[in-house]
Amino acid sequence: MINNQSPIGIFDSGIGGLSVFKEIRKILPDENLIYFGDTARVPYGNKSKETIIKYSKEIAGFLIKHNIKIIVIACNTVSSIAIDELKAEFDLPIFGVIYPAAMSAYQKSNGKTIAVIGTVATINSKAYSTAINSLNDSSKHINIIEQACPLLVPLVEEGWVNSSITSQVIRHYLKHVVGKKPSCIVLGCTHYPFIKNLIAKEVGEDTAIIDSGFEVASDVEKFLTDNDMLNTVNTNSSEKFFVTDDPNKFKILGENFLNRNIAMDDIKLIKDFL
Amino acid sequence: MINNQSPIGIFDSGIGGLSVFKEIRKILPDENLIYFGDTARVPYGNKSKETIIKYSKEIAGFLIKHNIKIIVIACNTVSSIAIDELKAEFDLPIFGVIYPAAMSAYQKSNGKTIAVIGTVATINSKAYSTAINSLNDSSKHINIIEQACPLLVPLVEEGWVNSSITSQVIRHYLKHVVGKKPSCIVLGCTHYPFIKNLIAKEVGEDTAIIDSGFEVASDVEKFLTDNDMLNTVNTNSSEKFFVTDDPNKFKILGENFLNRNIAMDDIKLIKDFL
Repeated sequence: MINNQSPIGIFDSGIGGLSVFKEIRKILPDENLIYFGDTARVPYGNKSKETIIKYSKEIAGFLIKHNIKIIVIACNTVSSIAIDELKAEFDLPIFGVIYPAAMSAYQKSNGKTIAVIGTVATINSKAYSTAINSLNDSSKHINIIEQACPLLVPLVEEGWVNSSITSQVIRHYLKHVVGKKPSCIVLGCTHYPFIKNLIAKEVGEDTAIIDSGFEVASDVEKFLTDNDMLNTVNTNSSEKFFVTDDPNKFKILGENFLNRNIAMDDIKLIKDFL
Repeated sequence: MINNQSPIGIFDSGIGGLSVFKEIRKILPDENLIYFGDTARVPYGNKSKETIIKYSKEIAGFLIKHNIKIIVIACNTVSSIAIDELKAEFDLPIFGVIYPAAMSAYQKSNGKTIAVIGTVATINSKAYSTAINSLNDSSKHINIIEQACPLLVPLVEEGWVNSSITSQVIRHYLKHVVGKKPSCIVLGCTHYPFIKNLIAKEVGEDTAIIDSGFEVASDVEKFLTDNDMLNTVNTNSSEKFFVTDDPNKFKILGENFLNRNIAMDDIKLIKDFL
């Protein structure tokens, strides 16, 4: 039975969603959390819509079997492509990363230019510009620049988060963005918070950085509070990680991303979908 | 019924195998070719042995239904992990990319150091050093340096094949290799021939480049000639491409890789395995 102690289910195509996990853990230290990283089938960004929907449904179904109270899609690609299909199929609250980040960008921009960076799939979906424009109740047109940065995910996955090569790749992708002096830039991929400092250096301090992980964590906290669904039982909050590929690799990269230890016993390899 | 006009079946986990396809087309202009790219399930490099064998058997079975006369595994991961299982299951000649490249490296090295670069999976499998050592009938130890270069596949997939950033990444990976002055370097990943020039610049002209696509194409030509299996019927040679994800994307990248047009009618989406 689902109750307030039931875990929050968080999933991503791989390991990038740990940036969302990290923000949720920070803001909700008492919640039980389950993270699912589809590390064998990552990346989703270059897969077709049908494939992404199929994979997402498999994972959501898996998480629901673990008695979760809500789902957080910690992946921009899935949030932009499959959230409606997941909401239609599954009967529990489902949060994506697009809407909270779009809302924050809209509020912070004050009508000025907004930049959005993400994977090819997220940018092509125009999910962010659609979401931002839907919030715009003024007659003023909002200028939105969207830029795909496909190489940033592999660079982060390889741990090149302080490399001058990564900075050069960022500079390459942002060359047309920086000139437009955007009010803010949305990190429209859950991997990007891990190179937030390098991105901040390229865009300069007049451009605010919007981290979708932080934004969705705030929304989740508000939802659980408003609906009296917070876990208030005074026990140690638990964490479980499910991955579809090598748990050791997940542990090494995950600890690097979360900046702390992950117990090997908390990581389980799932082979159901392969 | 299989005859000399039957096609050659070529398969890869994705699009990198087109470097092998290209060499086969160059050396065998009259053959009918079928290429299968498992673009929905790429990359194989981080999947388990069982999964890779399962996927490879599915694809080989599919190709055989299309009446092919031989199979070329245009993928280092599959060649290193699944070739014996495929040979045991299917009754037709099957060629992998490891052995021909290992043979060429062994012959060219003249007992001097051999370098091998590839994906993490290929390097960890030690497939090349095992193959090279098995050829070594002298008592002299062969020094083999193996180096994984995980970012090169995404750089090639993004088309950064002439970028100074790609050169810097190659330099980073090869920094310990170049100092050993290898006699030759094996491109142990079918994506790497598309950046052969950049790799050649980094290793210098005293190091020969071994392209497994070229080597396997030569072996296939010799085999077909020796066994009187060449297509000598004077018709236009045909080409068919089967992919498991978005055919449009395959067309764009594939044309970039092959440096020529691919007719959309020749690309078919296969959903049987997903």
